[in-house]
Amino acid sequence: MVKKYQDDSLALHTDLYQINMAKTYWDDGIHERKAVFEVFFRKMPFDNGFAVFAGLEHIIEYLQEFRFSETDIEYLRDELQYDPEFLQYLSGLKFTGTVRSMAEGEIVFGNEPLVQVEAPLAQAQLVETALLNIVNYQTLIATKAARIKHVVGNDVVMEFGSRRAHELDAAIWGTRAAFIGGFDATSNVRAGKRFGIPVSGTHAHAMIQAYRDDYTAFHKYAESHKDCVFLVDTYDTLRSGVPSAIKVAKELGDKINFVGIRLDSGDMSFLSKEARKMLDAAGFERAKIVASSDLDEYTILHLKSQGAKIDTWGIGTKLITSYDQPALGAVYKMVSIEDENGTMQDTIKISSNAEKVSTPGLKKVYRIMNKSTGKSEGDYITLKGENPESEDKLKMFHPVHTFISKYVTNFEAKNLHHDIFVEGKYVYTLPELNEIKQYAEEALGTLWEEYKRSLNPEEYPVDLSQKCWDNKMKNIEQVREKVAHLKDK
Amino acid sequence: MVKKYQDDSLALHTDLYQINMAKTYWDDGIHERKAVFEVFFRKMPFDNGFAVFAGLEHIIEYLQEFRFSETDIEYLRDELQYDPEFLQYLSGLKFTGTVRSMAEGEIVFGNEPLVQVEAPLAQAQLVETALLNIVNYQTLIATKAARIKHVVGNDVVMEFGSRRAHELDAAIWGTRAAFIGGFDATSNVRAGKRFGIPVSGTHAHAMIQAYRDDYTAFHKYAESHKDCVFLVDTYDTLRSGVPSAIKVAKELGDKINFVGIRLDSGDMSFLSKEARKMLDAAGFERAKIVASSDLDEYTILHLKSQGAKIDTWGIGTKLITSYDQPALGAVYKMVSIEDENGTMQDTIKISSNAEKVSTPGLKKVYRIMNKSTGKSEGDYITLKGENPESEDKLKMFHPVHTFISKYVTNFEAKNLHHDIFVEGKYVYTLPELNEIKQYAEEALGTLWEEYKRSLNPEEYPVDLSQKCWDNKMKNIEQVREKVAHLKDK
Repeated sequence: MVKKYQDDSLALHTDLYQINMAKTYWDDGIHERKAVFEVFFRKMPFDNGFAVFAGLEHIIEYLQEFRFSETDIEYLRDELQYDPEFLQYLSGLKFTGTVRSMAEGEIVFGNEPLVQVEAPLAQAQLVETALLNIVNYQTLIATKAARIKHVVGNDVVMEFGSRRAHELDAAIWGTRAAFIGGFDATSNVRAGKRFGIPVSGTHAHAMIQAYRDDYTAFHKYAESHKDCVFLVDTYDTLRSGVPSAIKVAKELGDKINFVGIRLDSGDMSFLSKEARKMLDAAGFERAKIVASSDLDEYTILHLKSQGAKIDTWGIGTKLITSYDQPALGAVYKMVSIEDENGTMQDTIKISSNAEKVSTPGLKKVYRIMNKSTGKSEGDYITLKGENPESEDKLKMFHPVHTFISKYVTNFEAKNLHHDIFVEGKYVYTLPELNEIKQYAEEALGTLWEEYKRSLNPEEYPVDLSQKCWDNKMKNIEQVREKVAHLKDK
Repeated sequence: MVKKYQDDSLALHTDLYQINMAKTYWDDGIHERKAVFEVFFRKMPFDNGFAVFAGLEHIIEYLQEFRFSETDIEYLRDELQYDPEFLQYLSGLKFTGTVRSMAEGEIVFGNEPLVQVEAPLAQAQLVETALLNIVNYQTLIATKAARIKHVVGNDVVMEFGSRRAHELDAAIWGTRAAFIGGFDATSNVRAGKRFGIPVSGTHAHAMIQAYRDDYTAFHKYAESHKDCVFLVDTYDTLRSGVPSAIKVAKELGDKINFVGIRLDSGDMSFLSKEARKMLDAAGFERAKIVASSDLDEYTILHLKSQGAKIDTWGIGTKLITSYDQPALGAVYKMVSIEDENGTMQDTIKISSNAEKVSTPGLKKVYRIMNKSTGKSEGDYITLKGENPESEDKLKMFHPVHTFISKYVTNFEAKNLHHDIFVEGKYVYTLPELNEIKQYAEEALGTLWEEYKRSLNPEEYPVDLSQKCWDNKMKNIEQVREKVAHLKDK
């Protein structure tokens, strides 16, 4: 296959309208005006009580390498007919903005700014698509993984979804997100190499078929591998698979580490209980039973309630595609923009859906930690100048049902945003992946159990400060007045 | 961020168990035995009457570049402790197998081999994960796109989903698949550059916010772009957005090409009808109305039935994530393997789920075209040696309910498989993307309407030849006998 353009830079990984807007701003000379955009989602995925933020590593990589290549410019000139002056501007462009973000592994909620981009207007526009593409997927998977982890408890849980992931990137970034959300390992070796995630896996049905029977195949495998998990359901689980596994384990004794067996089809509840009995009777009480077969948090909960004897879970399709809700709806909204006098002006997007009205102004997000319980009282969103750390008593009220309110004292207000880039310079140190995973676990520990159950959790408070709320109302009023003056059709 | 390993070859984009099996085969000296694996799915996605095959371009790229890099070997040695001799073998490995595949854009069905890999056992094993990762996603999206295209008819339909796609690869390969399935354009510029897909897009709400009102923003946009589609729902669609669009279009007259307006929220049915009236009353009868807002084939059908005045459809989330069914379940099963005497032996995977029992043997797929109607009578799967082209009369029978049968005469049997690689050599010429899209449309034209409706389509016949069916029964019987001899627990 001959490709027309040889390289494949990611600067064009954007929607055409971003480039068209950049062109208008450039022609109009406002492309360098400072603008603030915020990434947030409105609705909790899976109606879960929390979400787990992920995607920052890939965003950093993308922004650091953000450059239009020569062939990008060629394509824009030859195929899309942009004029040379504008292309000249694009060809010299680097990302020079400031980015603040939640840490990966942070526990996050609807309507709070996850990532904040404060950058020259045209630049801020151009990076929107890739940022959302990354955050939406990775945060979705980290959250799904955390739901599954919540149900499996201390059992080992592994990501097995590469073959059903949405193309190659999803397989590796998805498994990284799953690891952050609480998974222990992955089957994807590339993800293991790239991110340092433990990799796991033994053999497939094909190996049994290659040797034509379970016993021979298990024996051959055991001759070439110390750790052995035998897949027992190729022909007949209880008559052939499990007995063959036991036979090989007995024959080879200490020569191998008989970790256990894996079930990949059939009635997992029944088969696991029967297999357990057979293993125990043969003296392999410590052999593990691994299960995989379209599992998710719902099936696992049911299997556990039936007393299934499963120790380790392999989760594929339902996790990596986030099967029951395959998209997170995070958006990227302009909240503030410099005017012709160099003053920042807050801006709002109105919608006929009340919950789609954006909250204007550059914001900060604080987690209000109760010092006596060590648990979180909720998140508190303020405008830039506010400093809740210095207050003794905080009034927190629901941003829609404002009569729902409480006063908090004896608290610590923890700023959840980190500086990632300051005027184009990368100033952050991304923690090791294990630390990120660890952080997620600890952050989850500061949440009351009521927010964490997988069905019908309590709604975690994400409140606006009085100033932030007043500012929003003022902006809504201004738009209303403007529209009211237009002739009614 | 410092990466431990600098390159990121795709040879490790596989499940660990593939490498572990390769190791066993290598230790046992059977890694070069020829094996045949076939990719197929069982259940039609979305209960649709057909699927559209896609993914071949990426598979070709992957197989051509299949090579373990130095750091791949380092990782396997240092982190996973494989022995030097085996790693020596891996480090010299190229793909030397034969691959046959459906053409991209082919109309395909459950239980027929889409891709066939005939290769040294270890190699065939190592490439499984990536092949499924690619085919499952791209075929799913091409099929979803074809469903949507079926409902929009001759309206223009555009892919807008990058921000909700599952990471970066899905955004561009997904939009390529959508184009094959019938879409006209994409918003993703990188996909435009890389695949030659027409790109489309004008401006977002942010531009209106940047200029603080619709009129100014539209005017500025029109000053820098000839073709104008104005997004009218930032503040108030009917009071502000549409009147401002009309005002700018009137003022600038022939200086611009007022293509139309875009609606992105609210009641699409009501707003489009009202906007249509306003545009017509202003003399812009030819201005188009573009709609986008969580649309899919179901909402489009409803909007059309309500008489919504929408000319062009922008489809995001629901297409690119295949929201209502985010995974296709294609699998990769061994159907034949060389024995110690160099003879190919067919092989089967048994399952307690009857439909999961694989069909043994290297197979060919023929589309049986009725010469008088020009329509397809069904697909006919044969073993390697068979030649239905040379027969006058064909008995086609249901592979499960075998009493359902028919005789076909006056037919042409079209072999659907193409040679892609022959013993490692790439022998295919991938058609231009436009030709692939065109082929899909033509192939769909050979299907009766009853198979194409989006709800409750007829089941298209995918039948096994008598020999193929007999061979399957024989293999099942052999396994049964073997298992029956094992002691019952």
